[in-house]
Amino acid sequence: MKNYILRDENAVYYECGFSCDNVIFISLGSEKFFLTDARYVLEAKEYAYDCTVIESRDLLQTAKELLKDSKIKKLTFDPNDFTFYSYSQLVKDLDIEFIEELNFSKLKRIIKTDDEIAILSKAAKLGREGFKSLAKYIRKNGYKQKEQFLFFKAFEKMSQTGKYDLSFEPIVAINENAAKPHALPTKKRLRLNDLLLVDAGIKYKRYCSDRTCTSHVDFETFNFKREQKFKNKKHQKIYDLVYKAQLTAIKNAKSGMKASQIDALARDIITKAGYGKYFVHSTGHGVGLDIHEFPMITSKSDTIIEDNMVFTIEPGIYLPNEFGVRIEDTVAMIDGKAVVL
Amino acid sequence: MKNYILRDENAVYYECGFSCDNVIFISLGSEKFFLTDARYVLEAKEYAYDCTVIESRDLLQTAKELLKDSKIKKLTFDPNDFTFYSYSQLVKDLDIEFIEELNFSKLKRIIKTDDEIAILSKAAKLGREGFKSLAKYIRKNGYKQKEQFLFFKAFEKMSQTGKYDLSFEPIVAINENAAKPHALPTKKRLRLNDLLLVDAGIKYKRYCSDRTCTSHVDFETFNFKREQKFKNKKHQKIYDLVYKAQLTAIKNAKSGMKASQIDALARDIITKAGYGKYFVHSTGHGVGLDIHEFPMITSKSDTIIEDNMVFTIEPGIYLPNEFGVRIEDTVAMIDGKAVVL
Repeated sequence: MKNYILRDENAVYYECGFSCDNVIFISLGSEKFFLTDARYVLEAKEYAYDCTVIESRDLLQTAKELLKDSKIKKLTFDPNDFTFYSYSQLVKDLDIEFIEELNFSKLKRIIKTDDEIAILSKAAKLGREGFKSLAKYIRKNGYKQKEQFLFFKAFEKMSQTGKYDLSFEPIVAINENAAKPHALPTKKRLRLNDLLLVDAGIKYKRYCSDRTCTSHVDFETFNFKREQKFKNKKHQKIYDLVYKAQLTAIKNAKSGMKASQIDALARDIITKAGYGKYFVHSTGHGVGLDIHEFPMITSKSDTIIEDNMVFTIEPGIYLPNEFGVRIEDTVAMIDGKAVVL
Repeated sequence: MKNYILRDENAVYYECGFSCDNVIFISLGSEKFFLTDARYVLEAKEYAYDCTVIESRDLLQTAKELLKDSKIKKLTFDPNDFTFYSYSQLVKDLDIEFIEELNFSKLKRIIKTDDEIAILSKAAKLGREGFKSLAKYIRKNGYKQKEQFLFFKAFEKMSQTGKYDLSFEPIVAINENAAKPHALPTKKRLRLNDLLLVDAGIKYKRYCSDRTCTSHVDFETFNFKREQKFKNKKHQKIYDLVYKAQLTAIKNAKSGMKASQIDALARDIITKAGYGKYFVHSTGHGVGLDIHEFPMITSKSDTIIEDNMVFTIEPGIYLPNEFGVRIEDTVAMIDGKAVVL
C-alpha cells in the first residue's frame, strides 16, 4: 500500500470524515494518523474514523518524528499541497524518498460514490431553493437595487440566512458587468429589461452546489428558470444560443467519451454561430468537496468520462462592454448519461 | 537593489497599488513587471503604477522567460509564497540563485505610512459603525435568535449590506461557545443574561479592521461598549479581569519595548489572578492589508515595537464548557504610545 501525506482540508475530510484548518494526515500502510492542535483534538477523536488522532503544537515537527520512527522508504505527496517552505522543513534530515503526485487527492475523488452523489444532489436542491427565494426577493424589491446589495441578498437567500455555507462568493452582475467573468459587485442599479447573471452555490455536508442563471429583469415575473423572454433582441439571440449549447451538451454527453468531446458538444454550436472567441473558458469542471475538482471539461482533456463523475456544464458568451450570458448546471453521469442534479 | 518575485495578492498590491487573484510581480533593479491574464490586464494597465503590465496565459512560463532574458544572478522570494510545485517549475533550467526570505513582504510592511494609518483608522471607524448597528438589531430583534442567524446579521451589519468586504468570517458565540477560540455558529439561541462574544472586521481600501467585544445580553440596553454589567457574577469577574489586562497593555505599551513586553503587560495580570492557563493565545498581531501581519505580540517575540506599527491587543480567558471573554482593539503606535484606532 502506498504511503502518503496530506494537508489540504478537504483531502483529509475525504480520508476520515473529519477535518479542520490545521491538520496533517499521514497514511502508512494500514495505519493512519490525524495530527492537529489542541483546539480540534476532541472533535477529531469523536468524528475522525479509522485513524489515530495525535495532538501537536508543531504539526510539521510531529510529522517528521512519526515518519522517522516509521522506517518507511517512500512517501507520496501533492506538490501543490505544501508550500516550498513547509516541504523544505518536512524533508530535512529525513531519509525518505518523497514522490510527487500532482492532484493526488483530487484524482482519487474523481468518481463519486452513490452516497456522495446523494449528498451533492441534496446540495443542488438547496441551491435551487436559494435561487427561488432570491428571485422572489427581486420580483418584490429588486427595482433600482445596487449590485452590491443584490450580492448581499444572494448571500442571504442562498445561505438561508446563515444556515448553510456558500460554495464561493456569489457573482451578481447586470448587463455589461456580466461580460466580465471576474465581476465584482458595483453600485450599478437593477432596472426593467436588464439582463442579470447570478452564479452561486451552497455547501451541504461539505459538498458544493454550483449553478448559474442568466435572466431577463422585470419586477412581476422575474425568475431563474431556463426559459427566458428578453425584451432586448440581442440578449435573446445570445441567450438562446448559449442555452442550445448547454442543452446539447447535457443531452449528448455519454460515459466513455473524452472530456474534450463534451467540451466540443457545447463549443461547436457557439463557434458555428460565430461566437467562438467570446466563449473564453472551458465548458465545465468537476464538483465535490472542492468547488473545482476533476474532470475538467476542456478542449484539451483526454480524461475518459465515467459513470458517477459529477461536473458542471456551463457554456457562456461574453460580449465586452455589452453583456454576458452563462448557463450552468451540475450533472452526474448515471447509467451512461448526464443527469442534472 | 534587490531583485525579487511575489505572488501574494496583498504583497503585490503593496508594491504597485493594484492586484488580482492571478498575478506574478517581478522587481529587477529599478524595473518592475506585473504579469497577469487577459481578465485583469486592462485594469492593471490603468491602476498599477511604476510597473510594466504583461499579459500571459501561463504566468510561471512568462516569468521564466523574463528572468532568463534579464541575466540576473540572484532572486529573492518568500518560500511560503510558492507551492513546492510552482517553485520547482519556476527554477527549472534557470541559472539563477533563488534566495529564501521568509515573510519578505510582510516584514517590509511592518511599519505603516501615515497614509496607511489614516486608511486603517477609517476601516476601524466603519467597523465600529457595524458593531453599533448589530447592537441595535440585537436590542430590538435578538431575543431567541440562533447563533447562525446572528452570524448572518453580523455579516449584514458589518458589511453595510454588501458595501464593504469583511476582513474575515465573523465569530458570533454565546456562553460556552465563546470558550472555543474557533467557534462555528450553531443553532444555540440568544437569551436574557447570556454572554455574547463577537469578533469581526471590515476592509476599507483593502485594509482590515479587527475588533472583539464581549457583552452582557439583554434586549433593552444591549451594546458593544467596554463597560459591561453582567447578571452572572463569574461573567463579571472574568470580564473585569480581561478588561483590566487589555487597558493596562494599551496604556503602558511604548515604542522601544519588545513585543514580548507588551504581551507580558496583559498576560501578567491574568496570570497573577490565577487564569494564566486559560489565556491560550498571544496578546496580538499586526493588522494591515492582511488580517494577520507583523509584529506578533507573543511571549517569545523580540521584535522592537516602533512608531507607526499597527497591531491588536486582545487578551482573553476561555473557561471550557462555561464561557469565554476576549476584548480586542487595534492600536497604532503614535508618538511612542498606543492609540486605539
